[in-house]
Amino acid sequence: MNVFAVIMAGGVGSRFWPRSREKSPKQLLKIFDEKTLIQNTADRLQGFVEYKNIFIVTNKLQKEEISKQLPEIPNENILEEPFGRNTAAAIGLASVLIQMIDPKAIIVVLPADHIIRDKDIFQAALQRAVGFAYKKSGLVTIGIPPTRPETGYGYIQIDENELEENIFKVLTFAEKPNYETALSFVSSGDFLWNSGMFVWKAETILSEITLHMPELAMALKKIAFVSGTPRFERVLLEEYGQLRSISIDYGIMEKSHKVFLLKGKFTWSDVGSWEEVYQLSNKDKNDNSIVGKVYTDKTSDSYIYSPGKFTAVIGLDNVIVINTEDALLVCKRENAQEVKKVVDYIKLNKLNDYL
Amino acid sequence: MNVFAVIMAGGVGSRFWPRSREKSPKQLLKIFDEKTLIQNTADRLQGFVEYKNIFIVTNKLQKEEISKQLPEIPNENILEEPFGRNTAAAIGLASVLIQMIDPKAIIVVLPADHIIRDKDIFQAALQRAVGFAYKKSGLVTIGIPPTRPETGYGYIQIDENELEENIFKVLTFAEKPNYETALSFVSSGDFLWNSGMFVWKAETILSEITLHMPELAMALKKIAFVSGTPRFERVLLEEYGQLRSISIDYGIMEKSHKVFLLKGKFTWSDVGSWEEVYQLSNKDKNDNSIVGKVYTDKTSDSYIYSPGKFTAVIGLDNVIVINTEDALLVCKRENAQEVKKVVDYIKLNKLNDYL
Repeated sequence: MNVFAVIMAGGVGSRFWPRSREKSPKQLLKIFDEKTLIQNTADRLQGFVEYKNIFIVTNKLQKEEISKQLPEIPNENILEEPFGRNTAAAIGLASVLIQMIDPKAIIVVLPADHIIRDKDIFQAALQRAVGFAYKKSGLVTIGIPPTRPETGYGYIQIDENELEENIFKVLTFAEKPNYETALSFVSSGDFLWNSGMFVWKAETILSEITLHMPELAMALKKIAFVSGTPRFERVLLEEYGQLRSISIDYGIMEKSHKVFLLKGKFTWSDVGSWEEVYQLSNKDKNDNSIVGKVYTDKTSDSYIYSPGKFTAVIGLDNVIVINTEDALLVCKRENAQEVKKVVDYIKLNKLNDYL
Repeated sequence: MNVFAVIMAGGVGSRFWPRSREKSPKQLLKIFDEKTLIQNTADRLQGFVEYKNIFIVTNKLQKEEISKQLPEIPNENILEEPFGRNTAAAIGLASVLIQMIDPKAIIVVLPADHIIRDKDIFQAALQRAVGFAYKKSGLVTIGIPPTRPETGYGYIQIDENELEENIFKVLTFAEKPNYETALSFVSSGDFLWNSGMFVWKAETILSEITLHMPELAMALKKIAFVSGTPRFERVLLEEYGQLRSISIDYGIMEKSHKVFLLKGKFTWSDVGSWEEVYQLSNKDKNDNSIVGKVYTDKTSDSYIYSPGKFTAVIGLDNVIVINTEDALLVCKRENAQEVKKVVDYIKLNKLNDYL
């Protein structure tokens, strides 16, 4: 039984503007240490999945940089989608290609841009999910026990009956809730955060795609048929052009009757905003987290990033300051989610240099 | 009777960091419009003092830029002090050189970096000060009726007896007061802001220097003696090296018995901080004053300057953001006076690129 990994690296990460740009989205940035998030993601699999079995799904803009950041991963494993068509297509594409290599493959699907602190607990969880997926031919999703009423995450409701230690049948998937709903989810005890991490056999996910997304299944068959031939790129382009943009949650997980959840008991975050970066970063005695050449006075509880230029912050608290080569963000921490509106503004006004 | 002007342009303006630098202090910056403050100062004299009669006292770092900004002023009128020795020396130097050109010269002394909004009222005031200084051989200082208990300005107390319309005998000079003292000054009615503008005959100020600062008078004599010869620069360096650093207020005005005050009834500010720039600038409907490529959301009562880079400000009020090529200031407006501490920090840490 060979374990493969599919790292999903298509995100554009507008909430990390001005550090994240089209060509350097969140997963390609060094946010917490000297490695980028995607390098951390690959490192975290070491000892569990061989480099030659790691696949990455990304796009034209990011492929070169990903190859550079992860030279150990064979270049042909870095799949370039012609258009972003959401997670169902991306996972489907990687799955058919992996199945051609090994029809019995087990696949672990991981977002490229999350952080997980406890590698050993993480790998032990994957190991159990792999075993369960193999044995029961199920779709196993990793759920994270919620620690706060987060409105930025999706939730998964589980059946109270524990099938195996930490493994449950899934009842429903819930979209990002409002605050009151999130509060009731957290207090109920049977809702977990949807981490976007999945484990299954290639044949299981592909047969579920055939069942619930027959058009995608047909497209994937055509693509697989020309794999390794000069026609591959053209067929991929044609087929992708006709696909609808559907998430794996909506397209498969919410419809399938084979969905299970493994409770992941490791420190996890999807690092969805600068606020979360602040929360997860080391802080000084004023509760500031500072990167670069920075002077502060009467300033506390703030995240200040200024690796190139000199930055002085005076008399402010609870702010985020991101000072890059050509663009600057100054934002109250509580407004961190609204950074993506800046990117909308930049697009609308065609200020493409800052995109 | 020839009127001369001496524009004092030696300031380093650390309160305007990061726009003001050693090589580009406040007076050389475009703060409010398309002209720099020193250009505005020279413009304000047009029709009252001929360009050939305008002298500027500055230093090596600034001289070239001043020549460039004010090409109408003869290059030999731009005097370069070898060291900054405060206003008494600077005014003395210009005065001896002007007196050699015209022994009967009347001199108007003006800081290079103030703003005055009403040119006609300003020139009418100068005209009256010139007439009085000529007639009475007095030292006339321009005082500004205070509009608030400003602690950043010096004050001048006048005798209640009005000698001529708006002209009074000066009783005392007061240093920058604390808030309570400033409040009592403003409510008393006989204290005015010290604008640093003076009008006198060259012979009057030089004889007062002889009386109250004999060492300076001796140095000036030696310098004047070699004026126009190849020895000038060396003697200037030697003599300046031995001078003490004393302001004209402390060295002469507080000691002289010939000091008068003319009430200047024009809009005046020494623009001493970014807060004052904000106060004096045009504002939009959110009471923001914005220069450059700036996105704001939930932001009000702020001054945001970002001519080169793109800046986004979200969820903040009453802040100053100054985003320059290589350095950034983010400061609560109420802390604007503390910007000079950044410059101290930069000096202490020898971060000379940002000085």
